[in-house]
Amino acid sequence: MNKKMVIRILGIVMGVEAVLLLFPFIVGLIYKEDSGIHYLITSILCAILYLLSSRIKVERKAIYAREGFVITSLAWISMSLMGAIPLYSCGDFPTYVDAFFEIVSGFTTTGSSVAIAVEDLTHATLFWRSFSHWIGGMGVLVFILSVVKLQGDDHNMHLMRAESPGPMVGKLVPKIRNTASLLYGIYTVMTLALMLALLITGMPLFDSICNALGAAGTGGFSITNAGIGQYNNVVWEVIISIGMFLFGINFNFYFFILMKDLKGIKNCEEVKWYFITTFTFITLITINLTSFYGNIFEALRQSSFQVASIITTTGYASCDFNLWPQFSKTLLVVLMFIGACAGSTGGGVKISRWVIMFKKLKNTISKLLHPRSVKIVKFEGKLVDEDVINEVFVFWACFMLIFFVTFIIVSLDGFDFASTFTAVSACLGNVGPGLGMVGPMGNFFEFSALSKIALSFAMLFGRLEIFPMIITLLPMTYRRNTKL
Amino acid sequence: MNKKMVIRILGIVMGVEAVLLLFPFIVGLIYKEDSGIHYLITSILCAILYLLSSRIKVERKAIYAREGFVITSLAWISMSLMGAIPLYSCGDFPTYVDAFFEIVSGFTTTGSSVAIAVEDLTHATLFWRSFSHWIGGMGVLVFILSVVKLQGDDHNMHLMRAESPGPMVGKLVPKIRNTASLLYGIYTVMTLALMLALLITGMPLFDSICNALGAAGTGGFSITNAGIGQYNNVVWEVIISIGMFLFGINFNFYFFILMKDLKGIKNCEEVKWYFITTFTFITLITINLTSFYGNIFEALRQSSFQVASIITTTGYASCDFNLWPQFSKTLLVVLMFIGACAGSTGGGVKISRWVIMFKKLKNTISKLLHPRSVKIVKFEGKLVDEDVINEVFVFWACFMLIFFVTFIIVSLDGFDFASTFTAVSACLGNVGPGLGMVGPMGNFFEFSALSKIALSFAMLFGRLEIFPMIITLLPMTYRRNTKL
Repeated sequence: MNKKMVIRILGIVMGVEAVLLLFPFIVGLIYKEDSGIHYLITSILCAILYLLSSRIKVERKAIYAREGFVITSLAWISMSLMGAIPLYSCGDFPTYVDAFFEIVSGFTTTGSSVAIAVEDLTHATLFWRSFSHWIGGMGVLVFILSVVKLQGDDHNMHLMRAESPGPMVGKLVPKIRNTASLLYGIYTVMTLALMLALLITGMPLFDSICNALGAAGTGGFSITNAGIGQYNNVVWEVIISIGMFLFGINFNFYFFILMKDLKGIKNCEEVKWYFITTFTFITLITINLTSFYGNIFEALRQSSFQVASIITTTGYASCDFNLWPQFSKTLLVVLMFIGACAGSTGGGVKISRWVIMFKKLKNTISKLLHPRSVKIVKFEGKLVDEDVINEVFVFWACFMLIFFVTFIIVSLDGFDFASTFTAVSACLGNVGPGLGMVGPMGNFFEFSALSKIALSFAMLFGRLEIFPMIITLLPMTYRRNTKL
Repeated sequence: MNKKMVIRILGIVMGVEAVLLLFPFIVGLIYKEDSGIHYLITSILCAILYLLSSRIKVERKAIYAREGFVITSLAWISMSLMGAIPLYSCGDFPTYVDAFFEIVSGFTTTGSSVAIAVEDLTHATLFWRSFSHWIGGMGVLVFILSVVKLQGDDHNMHLMRAESPGPMVGKLVPKIRNTASLLYGIYTVMTLALMLALLITGMPLFDSICNALGAAGTGGFSITNAGIGQYNNVVWEVIISIGMFLFGINFNFYFFILMKDLKGIKNCEEVKWYFITTFTFITLITINLTSFYGNIFEALRQSSFQVASIITTTGYASCDFNLWPQFSKTLLVVLMFIGACAGSTGGGVKISRWVIMFKKLKNTISKLLHPRSVKIVKFEGKLVDEDVINEVFVFWACFMLIFFVTFIIVSLDGFDFASTFTAVSACLGNVGPGLGMVGPMGNFFEFSALSKIALSFAMLFGRLEIFPMIITLLPMTYRRNTKL
């Protein structure tokens, strides 16, 4: 383990956070809020950590897979530990654990909140919550890779792999650094477009910024208790639905469009299945809701917004879907286990993993019938390596395992089955709201500190796709010549 | 597809069922019940089907994997279709769908019931329900293999593989036929021992027989509404707990004991983990229940019975665990997804699959850290083939997939989350009772016919371990030179 290099990169992460914390400070200045100063103080703290770490002499700059995983997990944990300080110190959250839960939920683009009265939070805090979604959506290490020259491309790849969502991470252009810049470029332009669309249709500036940042990161923190439903504005709902849906698409797709690469676009199998899944769920829920709302248009309006929100794991709500019939609620819960596309800002298991699992299932059955046949799995026009397939299944098994463990821990609080179950699935899948107590009009405040910590870790496991967190938590990772 | 051979073997299955149906007929005679005659009539119907099928001339006797899977699924479905007739015609169940659900629940050793007043059922029906558990526990094809000379050993293996639970099916002795007889021998002796233990501690004869059959098959149909709790007898609870636990052990273990094969016993890794899991869950639930019951002994009594019942997927209840605190309930729900040992009469995912998944997880993480390392998985002292590992993961993914689909269908009935969710997990895992409406003191009667059929199929998927049912339902299985 190249510890010095790990600390050096974590130091850079602190430096970046120091800069990021200046934004809510400025928001605080604009709104003349005392809370802004807390963001400034934390920013200075981060800057000090950056300066201290930069004084360490790094002899070997090389990092490998192991360091990549550890850096990624620790970067996210330390960003959250620091990012929670102003939320707590400014008085917006009653305990540090609450503040930690809230900011982990922000960075991991989950959007589960412990805030009882969202409207009472200061503007600086509201902005910081939404901004954290945007930062977490594309990933802070990807950002660092795009602006800082760290080391050779091979080493950077380990960081990129560990932080990016999906079973297979590829480079769009030969250099990682350029790939990262390109991704952030697309991300920024699309976010600005969404913000403008809301602004010109009449949404106030602050609301436009926060809602756009939350949708772009597929986060879901809202600046009101009733979420997007508070506005009761069909136009904004449509704009945000489309926005969420687009940010749930693999960014490679946009790159192919930019490059006018028709073959690349045609090969985007995952995007095809993402469309099919979304429209199937919208149709089923619309049919189920038509009698509930009394007319098909209202049913379609509510179902399409909610499906777009849950499949992309954003978690915005335009109505209290907790009151829906069980069939529609079950479909939303199942969606939490599907997730958006790999290489998007969305969380969850990801469509591509499901497609690869289905293809392997087909092969396995074929092999049971014809034991001597040799079968391969192709995805997006490429042969899928057996190691990747294996990782997909192991990922799914780990996902369920972590689900069960967190479910058991959170059950200690003694809340009802639906609330407990969906609280865990919403956090692990980075969705946000669940059903019952944690429904779109509820919050996570009532849970014990233990549950909040367990759920925070579930969110981190979900966002970083399990393996980096497991590897970081295993003591054997830090031994020389690790033999697992 | 060797259709003639499929029909021939299904005919033999009908012949066996004709004989089996005579037992409830005799029970009816003893208790002077009219219902007995319905069992006789169905028995005659089965005998006619057997005779008709035996007139088909079979030229080729060879069967392969494909036929093995199809025969197994169709054998279970047709046995259930016939076995449901007397339940319905004698008037014990209001509709044929209810009767079908009940007998599928019997054969698959699930134990979920649609009977509102179990005490009002006739003795013939009560016996048939419990007897169906015993038949389904070891498997009807295994029974046929042990008494009928079908064909060469290789062909029999396909049937054995398709019906036996667990990721790897081995022969205990060189010949399948002898292996099957040996298994049924151990099974019968253990069942008789359990029956005697209950009898000499004072349980009435009829109750001893039914409860022993239900425990041996890890089924769980009770002859009273309040289950084993009705007796409120600690001695019987202890006897039945130990009985259930023993029937959840891989029968290879007993074979090794009989053979005094110390190396074989030591290699039984799955049994070790089965013990560890059981005692861990008993301990956790006992701690949680101590304050609930006010004393540790009552907590231990209830927790050990329920854990033994759920991990073996029996489903007997000695108390209404629906009233327990959420933590204990969650642990029981998690147990439903673990299951007993492979090669036992228990259902569920099976401990061995979990152990193999854990080992592969360890390897995968090790490979992420050291990409060039080559790792193998060893289980019970043997190398596990990559194909087997792959099947384990595909099995788990399919298990969850079928879970989600059934969950969505059953949600259409609009019952609450906990009832719907645990109804599906209890059926797919062949456990029996769930929580809420389908808790140990509740039943499945309220569900719609569609849900009952969906849940019946879930039970069959669970008992036959997914693949045979999927293969049977795929149209391409029946095409010549199937190319999947």
